[in-house]
Amino acid sequence: MSKPQLITPRTLPGFRDFLPVAMMAREKLIATARDVYRSYGFAPIDTPALELEEILLGKGGEETDKQMYRFEDAGGRRVGMRFDLTVPLARFAAQRIAELGTPFKRYHIATVWRGERMQRGRYREFMQCDFDTIGTTAVTADIETGLVIHDLFRALGLAVKIRVNNRQVLTGFLEKLDLGGRAESILRALDKLGKIGREKVAAEIVEVAGATQAQADDVLKLSELSGENDAVLVELDKLLAGNERGLAGVARLREVLSGMAAAGVPQERVKLDVSIARGLGYYTGVIYESFLDELPDIGSVCSGGRYDNLAELYTKEKLPGIGASLGLDRLLSALEELGRVATAATPAPLFLTFFDAERLHDYLKLARELRALGVGVEVYPEPKKLGQQLKYADRRGFRAALIIGSQEFAAGLCQLKDLRNGTTHELPLEAARIAEKLAELQH
Amino acid sequence: MSKPQLITPRTLPGFRDFLPVAMMAREKLIATARDVYRSYGFAPIDTPALELEEILLGKGGEETDKQMYRFEDAGGRRVGMRFDLTVPLARFAAQRIAELGTPFKRYHIATVWRGERMQRGRYREFMQCDFDTIGTTAVTADIETGLVIHDLFRALGLAVKIRVNNRQVLTGFLEKLDLGGRAESILRALDKLGKIGREKVAAEIVEVAGATQAQADDVLKLSELSGENDAVLVELDKLLAGNERGLAGVARLREVLSGMAAAGVPQERVKLDVSIARGLGYYTGVIYESFLDELPDIGSVCSGGRYDNLAELYTKEKLPGIGASLGLDRLLSALEELGRVATAATPAPLFLTFFDAERLHDYLKLARELRALGVGVEVYPEPKKLGQQLKYADRRGFRAALIIGSQEFAAGLCQLKDLRNGTTHELPLEAARIAEKLAELQH
Repeated sequence: MSKPQLITPRTLPGFRDFLPVAMMAREKLIATARDVYRSYGFAPIDTPALELEEILLGKGGEETDKQMYRFEDAGGRRVGMRFDLTVPLARFAAQRIAELGTPFKRYHIATVWRGERMQRGRYREFMQCDFDTIGTTAVTADIETGLVIHDLFRALGLAVKIRVNNRQVLTGFLEKLDLGGRAESILRALDKLGKIGREKVAAEIVEVAGATQAQADDVLKLSELSGENDAVLVELDKLLAGNERGLAGVARLREVLSGMAAAGVPQERVKLDVSIARGLGYYTGVIYESFLDELPDIGSVCSGGRYDNLAELYTKEKLPGIGASLGLDRLLSALEELGRVATAATPAPLFLTFFDAERLHDYLKLARELRALGVGVEVYPEPKKLGQQLKYADRRGFRAALIIGSQEFAAGLCQLKDLRNGTTHELPLEAARIAEKLAELQH
Repeated sequence: MSKPQLITPRTLPGFRDFLPVAMMAREKLIATARDVYRSYGFAPIDTPALELEEILLGKGGEETDKQMYRFEDAGGRRVGMRFDLTVPLARFAAQRIAELGTPFKRYHIATVWRGERMQRGRYREFMQCDFDTIGTTAVTADIETGLVIHDLFRALGLAVKIRVNNRQVLTGFLEKLDLGGRAESILRALDKLGKIGREKVAAEIVEVAGATQAQADDVLKLSELSGENDAVLVELDKLLAGNERGLAGVARLREVLSGMAAAGVPQERVKLDVSIARGLGYYTGVIYESFLDELPDIGSVCSGGRYDNLAELYTKEKLPGIGASLGLDRLLSALEELGRVATAATPAPLFLTFFDAERLHDYLKLARELRALGVGVEVYPEPKKLGQQLKYADRRGFRAALIIGSQEFAAGLCQLKDLRNGTTHELPLEAARIAEKLAELQH
């Protein structure tokens, strides 16, 4: 048989292999998010990676349609790979909510695909990490969304500033200015405030939304309000006087801020920010963005908000809700940049050298005894030279190596080598004593 | 604006939504597998769901090629969705092993897709849960693979029988019979032993492999050897006398069995079974299958084996290894059938009723205090009627409900209602006392 030519091993552009170091960081982040979500009663769900094209198409806008991986399956069905977890949630809720009942609190941590134009830091495959409370308009859910965001970053050991707004405030203000029908184009202009500056935004509001210069100035004044949360709330009440929707929006912001404070979130972690808008059509109420104190410029690492009607394309049942999404990829880059990602390529702390070829059974037995005590331990598979084994252990990043030769076995002793500083500790050859000493080193 | 017609919310045939109860069982199973893999030093990796078609095509046989989801992406590349985790591992290893070094121990828990013909219990999207040790031919890795399988089921609380064989035994025996070139067709015939019976298999061996009736009988005699492991080993040594490969195969089985016993695996859990073959071309050494004591008929729930050359299609570097795969879907069905899947649809044990509308802040504060003590707690979002709230709590399967009205707040008391038996416990309104009592109920 002639050998076929080798196939060059490579991944598709925009797709990544996750090697152990990166993958362990990802698993840790996901486990933290999961624990926090669960502690609030959010339950996990999963939905298929592939959905019928008609379920997905047109739900994320033109750009998203273009980016979607779509094709015909072997059964002649037009299908697409999910590009987010919100559209599948809408389909899922329409189909299952009668069975599940409301309020329904779910988290969903899963991969999504977008065939984006390639640029630095953008991937065509990435994970989303969402939580939502569906089927209630209660302010409790609004407050709780903020609490979850706060607790997420506390659990991750990252100081965060949570920015809160309410879409009803601007909507009400535009109604008051008789610009109610032009909210979308005005929001689109305001969204550029950070990029193109105040004057150009005002010009765009005048031009595109047909507002007067005075109206554009008023809109900008509103979205630029700053100061202590309480002071901003008072200003908002004044600016929105007479507009019911706007005042209700301010009232709800007041409830959210006081609720979060009452639940124990420090004042300096939550900031009322009238300028945040979070995209265009989707959100209708309270909205959240969150920025790391140490790296604010990477953008919001957890964002979300309240919506009126999640599943309107699939069911007549009105399903209001609120949710947010943790930016896993962005957060992983941030943790890496901050040097907070562990560098070990092994999940086990202890490396057991295979020193005496005759003693394989003893090594295996000791390793299982250690595991029974909760100590992860890798046994080197071959009795190679000690130097080679220790080099391997260093490369993988084990915390310590256990060395037991014939002499040690005879004497009932072992050497625990601290791989961080090279110190060796002689110990009795007992799993419990080894586990204890290792725990000391790990602290 | 006219309302567009509603889209019927539905999933593709062969694809599933995972609702909370099913998803929590899956998450628990995965967490258990992950902990066991990690305790042996296996590290996680991930690879893309999409690979270039040429990476995947022809690697799993004709049937698999047919089942693969394949299409052209927006960049004109032919791509496919992974149908297993072994082919991606081969590609990954060829590409990354120089950087990672050997031995390389990885686990990979991820979704794969196969457009199978629809039948009961078969899905087009499912998860695989693999672990492999690459880059060593040492028997340590063979033994350890068996230990991992044993520890997996111990951790899952399921009694399992692990069946071990070595492909070299049959290969050597066929060499001895001068049937060496016909191993593949003979293995294919033997694979049907359970289905079509002894005589038909013998006939097929005669017909397809061109063996004599006596040779076919010998082959069947070998594969039907049974009895205590030690006795079978002695028989095998006799049957293979003179054939080096076969005797080496028996010797390795002896090492694997004694190694597992030495490491503490009870004798009755491991069975030498010369009849298992695990497919055709891929495996070359020790192979494993595992069957649940309580449900042996569902088939092997964890299988694997040793291979000579993982990545030969992608690299000239020879990468031997051994690994196995936990059958998550099969195992989840089994756990369900055995009534071992928790029925609660919430990950939080405690439900906090929202009784007194004026006290929202106090409820939220208490809930966060409880979470800080490690107690998952869901707060009902609205002060609806108590009966309605408790009905919701029952439906979700909370362990207990905490009821605090104005009177209780005034008196500094609360009522903890055991939702399993309806008993109510009056407690001081302190997070620590509530957590303590709940822990009691949970035990």
